[in-house]
Amino acid sequence: MTPRPVVGILMGSDSDWPVMEQAVKTLQGFGVPCEARVLSAHRSPELVRRYASAAAARGLKIVIAGAGGAAHLAGVVAAHTTLPVIGVPINTKSLKGFDSLLSTVQMPKGVPVATVGIDNAANAAILAVQCLALRDARLARALAAHKRQLTASNRKADRRLPR
Amino acid sequence: MTPRPVVGILMGSDSDWPVMEQAVKTLQGFGVPCEARVLSAHRSPELVRRYASAAAARGLKIVIAGAGGAAHLAGVVAAHTTLPVIGVPINTKSLKGFDSLLSTVQMPKGVPVATVGIDNAANAAILAVQCLALRDARLARALAAHKRQLTASNRKADRRLPR
Amino acid sequence: MTPRPVVGILMGSDSDWPVMEQAVKTLQGFGVPCEARVLSAHRSPELVRRYASAAAARGLKIVIAGAGGAAHLAGVVAAHTTLPVIGVPINTKSLKGFDSLLSTVQMPKGVPVATVGIDNAANAAILAVQCLALRDARLARALAAHKRQLTASNRKADRRLPR
Amino acid sequence: MTPRPVVGILMGSDSDWPVMEQAVKTLQGFGVPCEARVLSAHRSPELVRRYASAAAARGLKIVIAGAGGAAHLAGVVAAHTTLPVIGVPINTKSLKGFDSLLSTVQMPKGVPVATVGIDNAANAAILAVQCLALRDARLARALAAHKRQLTASNRKADRRLPR
Amino acid sequence: MTPRPVVGILMGSDSDWPVMEQAVKTLQGFGVPCEARVLSAHRSPELVRRYASAAAARGLKIVIAGAGGAAHLAGVVAAHTTLPVIGVPINTKSLKGFDSLLSTVQMPKGVPVATVGIDNAANAAILAVQCLALRDARLARALAAHKRQLTASNRKADRRLPR
Amino acid sequence: MTPRPVVGILMGSDSDWPVMEQAVKTLQGFGVPCEARVLSAHRSPELVRRYASAAAARGLKIVIAGAGGAAHLAGVVAAHTTLPVIGVPINTKSLKGFDSLLSTVQMPKGVPVATVGIDNAANAAILAVQCLALRDARLARALAAHKRQLTASNRKADRRLPR
Amino acid sequence: MTPRPVVGILMGSDSDWPVMEQAVKTLQGFGVPCEARVLSAHRSPELVRRYASAAAARGLKIVIAGAGGAAHLAGVVAAHTTLPVIGVPINTKSLKGFDSLLSTVQMPKGVPVATVGIDNAANAAILAVQCLALRDARLARALAAHKRQLTASNRKADRRLPR
Amino acid sequence: MTPRPVVGILMGSDSDWPVMEQAVKTLQGFGVPCEARVLSAHRSPELVRRYASAAAARGLKIVIAGAGGAAHLAGVVAAHTTLPVIGVPINTKSLKGFDSLLSTVQMPKGVPVATVGIDNAANAAILAVQCLALRDARLARALAAHKRQLTASNRKADRRLPR
Repeated sequence: MTPRPVVGILMGSDSDWPVMEQAVKTLQGFGVPCEARVLSAHRSPELVRRYASAAAARGLKIVIAGAGGAAHLAGVVAAHTTLPVIGVPINTKSLKGFDSLLSTVQMPKGVPVATVGIDNAANAAILAVQCLALRDARLARALAAHKRQLTASNRKADRRLPR
Repeated sequence: MTPRPVVGILMGSDSDWPVMEQAVKTLQGFGVPCEARVLSAHRSPELVRRYASAAAARGLKIVIAGAGGAAHLAGVVAAHTTLPVIGVPINTKSLKGFDSLLSTVQMPKGVPVATVGIDNAANAAILAVQCLALRDARLARALAAHKRQLTASNRKADRRLPR
Repeated sequence: MTPRPVVGILMGSDSDWPVMEQAVKTLQGFGVPCEARVLSAHRSPELVRRYASAAAARGLKIVIAGAGGAAHLAGVVAAHTTLPVIGVPINTKSLKGFDSLLSTVQMPKGVPVATVGIDNAANAAILAVQCLALRDARLARALAAHKRQLTASNRKADRRLPR
Repeated sequence: MTPRPVVGILMGSDSDWPVMEQAVKTLQGFGVPCEARVLSAHRSPELVRRYASAAAARGLKIVIAGAGGAAHLAGVVAAHTTLPVIGVPINTKSLKGFDSLLSTVQMPKGVPVATVGIDNAANAAILAVQCLALRDARLARALAAHKRQLTASNRKADRRLPR
Repeated sequence: MTPRPVVGILMGSDSDWPVMEQAVKTLQGFGVPCEARVLSAHRSPELVRRYASAAAARGLKIVIAGAGGAAHLAGVVAAHTTLPVIGVPINTKSLKGFDSLLSTVQMPKGVPVATVGIDNAANAAILAVQCLALRDARLARALAAHKRQLTASNRKADRRLPR
Repeated sequence: MTPRPVVGILMGSDSDWPVMEQAVKTLQGFGVPCEARVLSAHRSPELVRRYASAAAARGLKIVIAGAGGAAHLAGVVAAHTTLPVIGVPINTKSLKGFDSLLSTVQMPKGVPVATVGIDNAANAAILAVQCLALRDARLARALAAHKRQLTASNRKADRRLPR
Repeated sequence: MTPRPVVGILMGSDSDWPVMEQAVKTLQGFGVPCEARVLSAHRSPELVRRYASAAAARGLKIVIAGAGGAAHLAGVVAAHTTLPVIGVPINTKSLKGFDSLLSTVQMPKGVPVATVGIDNAANAAILAVQCLALRDARLARALAAHKRQLTASNRKADRRLPR
Repeated sequence: MTPRPVVGILMGSDSDWPVMEQAVKTLQGFGVPCEARVLSAHRSPELVRRYASAAAARGLKIVIAGAGGAAHLAGVVAAHTTLPVIGVPINTKSLKGFDSLLSTVQMPKGVPVATVGIDNAANAAILAVQCLALRDARLARALAAHKRQLTASNRKADRRLPR
């Protein structure tokens, strides 16, 4: 039986999948059940609203939303839920992600979106795990291990440098 | 009896009123009935959705939406109606309207927002009149007169220059 | 017999055709007769002036103008007509469309250009259809169908995601 | 007896206090015990390291860090803890917060900082409450109430508009 | 008898006068007859066209054009004359002159605008004098004197520094 | 016998040649003798100084200078001559020419650089011809012909559009 | 007898003095003899060249140069000396120091300018002291003390926060 | 026996090696012993701290640190040492190095980072040599020779231009 997802990963378009897939893989690496959906704030607003409104009741704890350009998805989700919403600004061909970043992060007082770096869906996943780990000792240990691994692979890269 | 409004003027916060008031005044100058509402994509999303979804049925022809920062209002309205939506990016203290402009104008394919200059609510109103004038001979004449007046006041300013 | 065009699609250079062609195709999809022209605000200003001044009398209802860099075309057209003018900022090699966007959208009070996203000529066409649909029930229905289709293809993309 | 703080609010300089104070007040409004500290990634790096390293053991659940310019504070804290770290980019005189925003949000893969809008410390606090509410039913209810209140004050502002 | 002007100084609005006045004063300092006009590419395009088309025949040698925002004035003048056109981007409240600069300088191949710094109308005037001096020995000497004066006042400022 | 050059074309590095070559070719097209030199404000400052100081005496009328990044070449030349100096900002890999443009155009009061668009060396050449044409009837006629040709090739491109 | 200056502090204009004065005061605080001069890369290039060329022979070890806009001063000095040159980009009214920063830092390969933050002349001075301290044990100790003092005043600010 | 390194070259990731390698090669060209290390402010903060704190005692005179995005490495090193720290902002895929540059250069008062141009690791090395040359006559002569070589290769490029 598939475990009930605790993190919802939304993207405005399936062209965002190569970026957002990293969030899925990172969460899977931590053993956190998640679901990925293509839902657009502009093309399927009703579905976004229903998804966001029902998210908490369905057992989701966190929503990650990635979008590019006038990236409203994360903000619109945040308008419909009190769960933490993490925004991933997706790089754009012309303005190089400046548009995605500013339209994700500059939310008005009262409705935050936790914004990570452009195209950095892996970090969105880790941030989600950090929130979940606040009361999940297994995840807290996994994060500590992950941190040690970051250091370890940094050391390994260091040793690979030509001397 | 107040005439039924044909243009809806939305703003995310009442702090946007000094800017958006210019749209109201400009429309009034053209004799176009309008209504002004404070509705936030993030703080009152349900109201925005209902307003946008019902707009056409209520007799509105055009919606003007002004917002600052992660300015999602115009885009969210456009997601819920097929009426033309005009976006007014509002100037911001830190990023000087770059955020408002990019998050208003860079809409995805399929859901346009007709964006005017930062804080330029008067132009949003004129654009609305231009759309309405497509089949309203009185408004078309009023726009022609307005254009002559622009030239006239430009000339007047020209004559006032020190020689 | 070719129907009389109701939308004029201008571009500053034929190198803009691959972008602006989307406007033509989108309008054709809605059954809106249009004409496409290469006219430059800087290289053929007389032609632009005559085109814009005669546009309304020729039966055009809306002008779409795409240009890159110091993108003056839409603004110059708007100076010569009271028809709605929609501007499409074209992406540029060095400044990535920042120049095209700012020189299209930041019009002075009195002479608006309805600006869409960088390279987003399809949205310019849809915006034109939205204006025309204000009194054309067939187009209004077509826009509603288009909106349903956006949702439908969003759903389809959603179902295609790996689970 | 003062309750043990669960949120640590750091700022790089006491000149950031007028901004960061909003985080304190917002958390107090939710009844979430917090502590505010001036700790600089560049002027007191040892203290930051010790603070961040000991944060979890001291019972902190979340760290909020505000800084301006080359805003490294949130990132440095995130390097030393697996708790969620929320970054508040502070507005700057010359570059208008572009520097603070980019140096807070663009963290490398593996070490996220949950970034909120420039100077938006209140949103950092709400985000913190959202994380804490994942397993605290009282806070979840308070967030729901807060969301209703946002809508209510939006409605009130709407009613205050001149008609 | 007033001498026939050889430099035309245009501005889009009389609000640009405090900036453009520096061009007038600088030219007067060099004894170069000039005329200042308020003419807008968007509000009085016919006048701009006529002015630019007739400029050479009227004896003008150079046109200086200052405008802000979507600053099309210099480009439109350049479209209608083969005289050198100097553009002065005017500072703007929101985008701080980025818009004015980019829309003045990024002209397409074939139609240059000689752009000076934001609000730097004095430099536009000096550039005009440099062009005129190519065959006017008196102006060439005046420019040499002006250059010495720049050095001299730089030296004077140097001596005034506290030691 | 080679005619004495009247326009000097400088570039900071030979990697700028593919861009600056357009200036050479454009000037040749107008029959204006020119010389092209690699001279760097930072790597061969003495040569730049001597070149600029001697330019007028050597019979040069105008200097065109192209450089990228911290593009000081045009400004340094302008510091050493009262001839008109035209700056060509060269596109850059990282900052996309923003750096080159700003460091070329934002000259202090008293020492102008006539700046053209990024990589637009052809326009620098035309601007030079426009200055030279102020007293050269042949060049004035050639510029008029060039302007007609711009219109003609614009018309040709217009006719090539698919109907 | 005044000690021979080891650091030269240059500024393009005396309007830069309020910023550059911080460099003087900071150096004085470390007991490092310095001299301050107004010398402009554009208005007094000969003086700059002579100053820079003679700097090493006169006993200067480091040059600090502050300028705004198209800020060429530091780069031009660096072209004429092999001493370390530290650049201070000065804030500007329109472009908020973006221009000064980019034109100072983006130097070509071979001729570096050590750039500090916008208006941060104090840091330029400390950087100069750090270079001098490489072989001056007194200065090295003074820097260590200064670092402790930074921490101490950070701590003091921390204690002043309202609890 | 390998000579003890006097310059430490740090990079946040081994993907920065192709850029930072230029620093190594340039230093080797000057005969300055150096060591290159992969150390991340965010992934191996403890190692960075130890490296920076011990740098002076280990005989290092200067640290060069290259990083991209939220580039904290140079700043964090500078927080832990009073040696001169030179920052190399590394180009980024989305924001084109704007993020790296601003997060490296905009350091707070008291803790400078000597920032060079984006990806310009060669200049970081030359700057390091300039600091070391303050009391090393051999290096001073090598720098003078290097400067002559810059001029020479500039001249050579000049002669290669097509005439």
